[in-house]
Amino acid sequence: MKKLINEPKNFVDDTVRGIIAAYGDRLQLLDGDPRILLSGYPTADKKVGIVTAGGSGHLPMFLGYVGKGMLDGCAVGNVFASPASSKMAQMIRACDRGNGVLCLFGNYGGDKLNFEMACEEVEFDDIKTEMILVSDDVASAPKESSERRRGVAGLVYAYKIAGAAADRLWSLEQVCQVTRRALANIRSMGVATSPCILPEVGKPTFEIGEDEIEIGMGIHGEPGIEVRKMMRADQTADVLLDRILDDLPLTEGDEVSVMVNGLGATPLEEQLIFYARVHERLSALGVKIYMPHLGEYATSMEMSGLSLTLFKLDPELKELLQAPAQTPFYTNLNKGEIV
Amino acid sequence: MKKLINEPKNFVDDTVRGIIAAYGDRLQLLDGDPRILLSGYPTADKKVGIVTAGGSGHLPMFLGYVGKGMLDGCAVGNVFASPASSKMAQMIRACDRGNGVLCLFGNYGGDKLNFEMACEEVEFDDIKTEMILVSDDVASAPKESSERRRGVAGLVYAYKIAGAAADRLWSLEQVCQVTRRALANIRSMGVATSPCILPEVGKPTFEIGEDEIEIGMGIHGEPGIEVRKMMRADQTADVLLDRILDDLPLTEGDEVSVMVNGLGATPLEEQLIFYARVHERLSALGVKIYMPHLGEYATSMEMSGLSLTLFKLDPELKELLQAPAQTPFYTNLNKGEIV
Repeated sequence: MKKLINEPKNFVDDTVRGIIAAYGDRLQLLDGDPRILLSGYPTADKKVGIVTAGGSGHLPMFLGYVGKGMLDGCAVGNVFASPASSKMAQMIRACDRGNGVLCLFGNYGGDKLNFEMACEEVEFDDIKTEMILVSDDVASAPKESSERRRGVAGLVYAYKIAGAAADRLWSLEQVCQVTRRALANIRSMGVATSPCILPEVGKPTFEIGEDEIEIGMGIHGEPGIEVRKMMRADQTADVLLDRILDDLPLTEGDEVSVMVNGLGATPLEEQLIFYARVHERLSALGVKIYMPHLGEYATSMEMSGLSLTLFKLDPELKELLQAPAQTPFYTNLNKGEIV
Repeated sequence: MKKLINEPKNFVDDTVRGIIAAYGDRLQLLDGDPRILLSGYPTADKKVGIVTAGGSGHLPMFLGYVGKGMLDGCAVGNVFASPASSKMAQMIRACDRGNGVLCLFGNYGGDKLNFEMACEEVEFDDIKTEMILVSDDVASAPKESSERRRGVAGLVYAYKIAGAAADRLWSLEQVCQVTRRALANIRSMGVATSPCILPEVGKPTFEIGEDEIEIGMGIHGEPGIEVRKMMRADQTADVLLDRILDDLPLTEGDEVSVMVNGLGATPLEEQLIFYARVHERLSALGVKIYMPHLGEYATSMEMSGLSLTLFKLDPELKELLQAPAQTPFYTNLNKGEIV
């Protein structure tokens, strides 16, 4: 294992220490707890709180989206492991401003169970909560049982929409409604070409042959739907796009935002080459692309590969997508309209 | 070789096609030439032009800094190879608005030779040019012959300062003066833990042992000053920081911007762990950090490792650093003061 880290068992705490060292003027830990990060940006009274939680090792997912116009708080666990429900409950309490808190997170067993317990716990403090599970990965279950699908990079769009809705001081019900509508329009799928190594394990999480690519793999190394011989970027884009379009049909005149997400070790050059094909295919369908997102949004440490996310827009969703957001790790201020 | 690309020989053109597909509303090619990228952002008349050039394979360096408040144009060559002088000359002509053009680039033989020829060529069109070579890599030559040093991630700060000065409609002389002052205050050094593969070659550019780290390596795989047994992040930070501080002494009350630059495959988590140590060391010296930059700024495709850059600020340089800049690949709008 060749990682620029210190003690493997301190990987998460050391990472969070780095976040606070760099961005302590705009992010803060709840009572110094390195597993509960809160926004330090100015926030309107009465705003509905938007929080998430998940395992570490996916930066900028999850911690990186705490900030203005996105998340108010995030609890993280160990690498690829859910944080405890008690941490989630503390975070929810800290992010409630009297109008409730939306718990918006990926559809993973541990996170779901713990968030359920946390929401029950804060009910005793009369804090109103709602849970929305993100399950955008089309490869992880068939359409008929889409509620079993995993949440991947589509979470970023969900945070963006929910955060913008909350910033407009919408009620918890309204925030949930528009977030659910956004999620109905978001689909993702990924490929991996090399695994990552868990710091405390020191060995790759899975193996991929020298000449192979795994289609539909999860960001924790969950097996994909198929292992193929290594493919060209264009062919890879076609495979992912076909599967997504099968689930989210698009027709001429539709408008989408496209996210190409590097899983950690995939150069920007490769993401752009892949994107060129997605753009070509969507253009041929008469589909317009608005505010593409290229870069690293939900990684698996040094895994290589990428995922594709499509987010079909309507006028309201587009407005919420373009509402200004800034966290130390994400902003749309250099995207969208040119000012 | 496992890259998500199409024909290896089309790597650069396909990448640029992706850039235009994604950002064609704000960037444009000069007469459709995929090797000459120009800003499409609104630009003031009479602004001094700021241009650069270099090899491909380092995104976001170089193309990624074309935009508002940074570069007006960038010419790129093949992977790790300088573009032809004729391309540079065309770019300079396109970026001149009557007040001259600053050619700001890394200190590499090919780029220097070609820019010299290009500047001579445009002299016939009465275009005033200045060349400033960036040589921030302290590992690449001793202090006494610092003019031989290579240019690495410090280029980003140089683009930022020159771009902000030009945006204020300063004269070419004034822009050069402040850029030179900035460069006198910028130092970098990097380490590599794994090589990258050139698309058309298909083999790693160099070898590093399973348990080794190369100190002071260049972003094209230029040999470093020392190969060591793999080190912890803290120790690595100390090695780079000590060498940089030896060259750029800092004392209590000084203010610096710090850039931790992932070389391509290094997770954000590791960059943050490394940064925590840099922050700790500088804090112990009484040095303040302003607007840290963490992420990928000058890569070597899928090389793993990172570089550290320190930029010592004075009030004017700080103001120019914080002047708003936005390109599709870079912005400081989510850095600096919180609005």
